[in-house]
Amino acid sequence: MSQKLRVTVWNEFRHEQINEKVRAIYPEGIHHAIGAGLGEDFEISYATLDEEEHGLTEEKLNHTDVLIWWGHKAHREVTDVIVERVHKRVLGGMGLIVLHSGHFSKIFMKLMGTTCNLKWREADEKERLWVVSPGHPIVEGIGPYIELEQEEMYGEHFDIPQPDEIILLSWFEGGEVFRSGCTFHRGQGKIFYFRPGHETYPTYYNEQVRRVIRNAAAWAAPTTRPVPVYGKSVPLESIKGVQPQ
Amino acid sequence: MSQKLRVTVWNEFRHEQINEKVRAIYPEGIHHAIGAGLGEDFEISYATLDEEEHGLTEEKLNHTDVLIWWGHKAHREVTDVIVERVHKRVLGGMGLIVLHSGHFSKIFMKLMGTTCNLKWREADEKERLWVVSPGHPIVEGIGPYIELEQEEMYGEHFDIPQPDEIILLSWFEGGEVFRSGCTFHRGQGKIFYFRPGHETYPTYYNEQVRRVIRNAAAWAAPTTRPVPVYGKSVPLESIKGVQPQ
Amino acid sequence: MSQKLRVTVWNEFRHEQINEKVRAIYPEGIHHAIGAGLGEDFEISYATLDEEEHGLTEEKLNHTDVLIWWGHKAHREVTDVIVERVHKRVLGGMGLIVLHSGHFSKIFMKLMGTTCNLKWREADEKERLWVVSPGHPIVEGIGPYIELEQEEMYGEHFDIPQPDEIILLSWFEGGEVFRSGCTFHRGQGKIFYFRPGHETYPTYYNEQVRRVIRNAAAWAAPTTRPVPVYGKSVPLESIKGVQPQ
Amino acid sequence: MSQKLRVTVWNEFRHEQINEKVRAIYPEGIHHAIGAGLGEDFEISYATLDEEEHGLTEEKLNHTDVLIWWGHKAHREVTDVIVERVHKRVLGGMGLIVLHSGHFSKIFMKLMGTTCNLKWREADEKERLWVVSPGHPIVEGIGPYIELEQEEMYGEHFDIPQPDEIILLSWFEGGEVFRSGCTFHRGQGKIFYFRPGHETYPTYYNEQVRRVIRNAAAWAAPTTRPVPVYGKSVPLESIKGVQPQ
Repeated sequence: MSQKLRVTVWNEFRHEQINEKVRAIYPEGIHHAIGAGLGEDFEISYATLDEEEHGLTEEKLNHTDVLIWWGHKAHREVTDVIVERVHKRVLGGMGLIVLHSGHFSKIFMKLMGTTCNLKWREADEKERLWVVSPGHPIVEGIGPYIELEQEEMYGEHFDIPQPDEIILLSWFEGGEVFRSGCTFHRGQGKIFYFRPGHETYPTYYNEQVRRVIRNAAAWAAPTTRPVPVYGKSVPLESIKGVQPQ
Repeated sequence: MSQKLRVTVWNEFRHEQINEKVRAIYPEGIHHAIGAGLGEDFEISYATLDEEEHGLTEEKLNHTDVLIWWGHKAHREVTDVIVERVHKRVLGGMGLIVLHSGHFSKIFMKLMGTTCNLKWREADEKERLWVVSPGHPIVEGIGPYIELEQEEMYGEHFDIPQPDEIILLSWFEGGEVFRSGCTFHRGQGKIFYFRPGHETYPTYYNEQVRRVIRNAAAWAAPTTRPVPVYGKSVPLESIKGVQPQ
Repeated sequence: MSQKLRVTVWNEFRHEQINEKVRAIYPEGIHHAIGAGLGEDFEISYATLDEEEHGLTEEKLNHTDVLIWWGHKAHREVTDVIVERVHKRVLGGMGLIVLHSGHFSKIFMKLMGTTCNLKWREADEKERLWVVSPGHPIVEGIGPYIELEQEEMYGEHFDIPQPDEIILLSWFEGGEVFRSGCTFHRGQGKIFYFRPGHETYPTYYNEQVRRVIRNAAAWAAPTTRPVPVYGKSVPLESIKGVQPQ
Repeated sequence: MSQKLRVTVWNEFRHEQINEKVRAIYPEGIHHAIGAGLGEDFEISYATLDEEEHGLTEEKLNHTDVLIWWGHKAHREVTDVIVERVHKRVLGGMGLIVLHSGHFSKIFMKLMGTTCNLKWREADEKERLWVVSPGHPIVEGIGPYIELEQEEMYGEHFDIPQPDEIILLSWFEGGEVFRSGCTFHRGQGKIFYFRPGHETYPTYYNEQVRRVIRNAAAWAAPTTRPVPVYGKSVPLESIKGVQPQ
């Protein structure tokens, strides 16, 4: 029996099938590049939009400790019933790592409660992701910054709730900054948003980007948590001086 | 022309019409007791569930700086189109004060992204709300704690995102604690959740409770804010070495 | 009797006396440029390092609502007794705005509990301060960003506790980012750290920089706060079943 | 070679030598009861006030991953040089767990920057510590709350900076609440303040209290962190158009 954390990498998997440039970079799909970067410490599986139930059956989610999400052009095609299902699982403790354009995914917007809007520009710009929480396990093994020669720019204002922790801040050649590595807790679940990864760049082969995702998967794992008790409460004996007989 | 902040008090207004005990306490409805507590510093208006569009027309919301929300038994009857409208206005800068059982309102749950679940008990318990952020304008003029002789109990775990600030913590006679005064920022809007106010107690006549709501209304007012620019960005001259002539 | 907030601008006031370049920009001292930017809404006074008690007598501090601090090369000459005095006043509710190189002042380090270290470079770089909390009163009236043609660079990692709110993030031409506008609450006091203002640039004449400082002074003002009760507590009648007669 | 985390338990160790009641509960000292609760997963050692350098030599601290601190009546006898040494190590990544009356220790006050004051009462009161961050690893394996039949009361306002996370909130029989389990990040170090443990109660034999301390020690362990680069920065080739040859 495996004791490894079970990570499911979900990918929209459309760009790779219709855009030659993207396919040249990620011939098996972005999900497989992400999965390859996770290494041997996890039990990895994959799911994509065009599978039955987008590959996210109850069975599948109930056996997932951490879900990684990459989507971009087909957010609207993700059905609400699956979004509800993932939402419920995250609140129940499943970790969630949302990558790049996943900021506009239904599941991320539902968890944030805001528009998740931002500025963007495709101009092959240099990006530097500076570590601002150097003691955090998500940046274990990373240097003072990660440099990506070319990426899409995302700029502030990023319309999200104040993150619980900001781990990485991006600098872009063209003059913008961005909160690129952010943690959130929702219910019993841990969420990490990580900015890089536009489909036309080989970002998910970068060793430091892979290290961050690997660290984040370990960080987001569920704990054997207290199970909160909700709803109507049994009266306590201490109330109103009523003592047990 | 009035320069006062425009506060709209929204009330479900059902208990008062069908429950004699509640009507005896709030003969004109909870909303009018809340409004009376706001005093002369605001331009106050009212809206209730059974009005057309629940009283929250586009016109009305566009002329509201801060919306106060009390609801309990009919959350589901609030239509999604109105929830969307209020949500959009909050993200655009309108303040929102959610009271007591409003924790389960559609608008609060949508803004939080969590279940907003909690424990509760109706047992006429004493409640003490301790100030834990004594420098905060929301507790200006309040003593070390507010004591309410009898209230409904709400207990942790309260399933909300980590608040931006915790202002008040409740102690209950029966053994529970609760994060009773919490601020959140969502988009350009400021949100304050304030726990007390079960319909069968005269809580909204309490002078300290009124003071907190009054302070919160002033705190939640929109600022003449920066208007963030979202979406595709114009390339900057500094990109890729293209210099202005 | 004046009802205006009383702001004291403290300046080390050494560069201006020994460096011609600085004197040319700030002939009356940096403090007077900052004070001029505050406008008519405050009762403004000044204090400098070489005055008796650095100009910060008990009398002076007891009549100060918000203290603005600019220091750079003589942090060590500020005596510990004055640092203790300011510290006590901040915890008691006086607002504090720490500017630029004040990150290494004794008072800021004492309040933060960390080294407050950072990277820096003097290279006449362009700086852009992006607004990341657009609903916050400190950026009322500011656009999406503030641009300064030339400033000293400060880069992450900035060794401070996680701020309560991050209001502004800086981008620098040379490749760095910085948390440039941060709020902290300590005791009953509100603290705002604001990065720009190296002595060799005319930064404190910039209208948007002045607006931020003006907003921050209003935000940092003390409230008529709850006075917390500390120390040994009187036993409460409800303890151990002892009922009042 | 041991791969276990190295935990040093520091105890003032005075009450146990002069107070029979305390000695009866903790005959070998509070530190040994705490150490026994940590179990087999750590390499445990001890240090006490009356040892040379309080048992906290450079050598010792350099071989400590997590330091646990219990002190009460002799905070002032801890020399400043040792406080500086511990402070430097925490900022450099060593974990720190501060227990109970350690809220007034020099090291905790220095890290917080505030008075760390609170209310207290010795009246053999029941305490309930409610979990408010159920997904956090520090409460792994804990139920909805921990109940202690008798403890000293600590009440709000607790004069600390806003914690990065609040994990546990205490309810006391006599009417007070307290933020009893709080995390802070300072420099590269992780800090956990945990309230229970007055010397006249057998609190450190409680299995759930021990579990929290054990979890916290694992959580506070240093990571192989990014080493931030501080100070004057080498000019970057991208500045001012100077290109490498």
